[in-house]
Amino acid sequence: MSGPHERDTSHGPRAVVLLSGGLDSATVLAIARAEHLACHCICFDYGQRHHWELPCAQRVAQQLGAASIRTIKLDLRSIGGSALTTDDIAVPKDAFSAAGEVPVTYVPARNLIFLSIACGLAEVVGARDVFIGVSAVDFSGYPDCRPEFIESFENTVNLATRIGAASPGPALRIRTPLVAMSKAETILAGSRLGVDYSLTHSCYDPVVSPGDSAHAPIVLACGHCDSCVLRRRGFAEARVPDPTRYAP
Amino acid sequence: MSGPHERDTSHGPRAVVLLSGGLDSATVLAIARAEHLACHCICFDYGQRHHWELPCAQRVAQQLGAASIRTIKLDLRSIGGSALTTDDIAVPKDAFSAAGEVPVTYVPARNLIFLSIACGLAEVVGARDVFIGVSAVDFSGYPDCRPEFIESFENTVNLATRIGAASPGPALRIRTPLVAMSKAETILAGSRLGVDYSLTHSCYDPVVSPGDSAHAPIVLACGHCDSCVLRRRGFAEARVPDPTRYAP
Repeated sequence: MSGPHERDTSHGPRAVVLLSGGLDSATVLAIARAEHLACHCICFDYGQRHHWELPCAQRVAQQLGAASIRTIKLDLRSIGGSALTTDDIAVPKDAFSAAGEVPVTYVPARNLIFLSIACGLAEVVGARDVFIGVSAVDFSGYPDCRPEFIESFENTVNLATRIGAASPGPALRIRTPLVAMSKAETILAGSRLGVDYSLTHSCYDPVVSPGDSAHAPIVLACGHCDSCVLRRRGFAEARVPDPTRYAP
Repeated sequence: MSGPHERDTSHGPRAVVLLSGGLDSATVLAIARAEHLACHCICFDYGQRHHWELPCAQRVAQQLGAASIRTIKLDLRSIGGSALTTDDIAVPKDAFSAAGEVPVTYVPARNLIFLSIACGLAEVVGARDVFIGVSAVDFSGYPDCRPEFIESFENTVNLATRIGAASPGPALRIRTPLVAMSKAETILAGSRLGVDYSLTHSCYDPVVSPGDSAHAPIVLACGHCDSCVLRRRGFAEARVPDPTRYAP
């Protein structure tokens, strides 16, 4: 894979980056690339309602010069329990959950599962750093975005893996460069690093006009799910033009 | 799903049981059933060389009266790095790794990944106990079979999930009834609980005679991989007849 920011880092340090196709993980990839890490990206086709993010992840990886990108298929629809992985639960609009309540868009154990698989890949590609775009500031109240979870996971993964078992001290590091950043700060950081946010997709419940033989489907952000509200507010606060195409 | 040991426990406490189709997890399911838990089993079609274990898991779940069984597809071949998930690395025969060395059949982060997904299912079905058949006695030297990993994982999962975030104290429990048992002790325990070990499959590298329109494939255990050696030795030490069909 090559792109405008590509440089040959194949002999340098490597990282695994969890890439969703959204705004946060694109910014994280740009931050990891700014450290001259060869970035092996991992995305998940997990039966998410907003699978439109997956081609976005490919384009983001390309734009930011990732070393590789893998899409792992994992059927979380057969587990369900989230508005994102079953059609029976609606995505709430303009309605954040109360403080301390976990919203219905929470996917059971998702970050735990994704980090675990990312760390398996880190062992195989020889990466010491695994990046994830969680934030404890502008977030929806998911338990698996909290710093105490990430810290605990780092301890666990170093007991679970060959790389951890072989070395003294933490061998795999879980890197969360956005953890203390607001959405606006994330957007400003990414803009400075050249992220093209028009390539990213955040909406949980997009409005899609089906394509035909001559035209690709048109995917518009709903503008009202938690993810859209946080994103839109972030661009406004950052005073950066919002390239998102919202449904009318 | 029903079976000879089925009883209606749908209103009683529930568990999730990681079921591979092998000897250990079958025993664990029998132990959980003996506690009158409604057992929701989870298996993984992860690109394993020995996918022959998957139909065995179905039969074991049926025999022991599991409440449900799900097979989750997860493509770990696209990560590789193990003799079990790539054809480029051979399964060692009659050759255990040296103490402290992790064998090539180790699948990067496998138990971490499987437990994470099982805990996601536990949230959805309302289970508090998640069972896994790890043992730190007769095992191949995998880091993710050690009790210190399991203990750390339990802490982590209770920070990662809705169920853990909502309750004081550990809400999800990771249960490892075999952790201090030798293979012979496991076989004796399972035999007492009515496990039919002829339904189970342990071999990493079976010898398969392809079937035809009239006959199913014949799957024989190789008898020489780590898993076969531990299993065969276990039956001999337990003085229980070994129902395994080994290749000549």
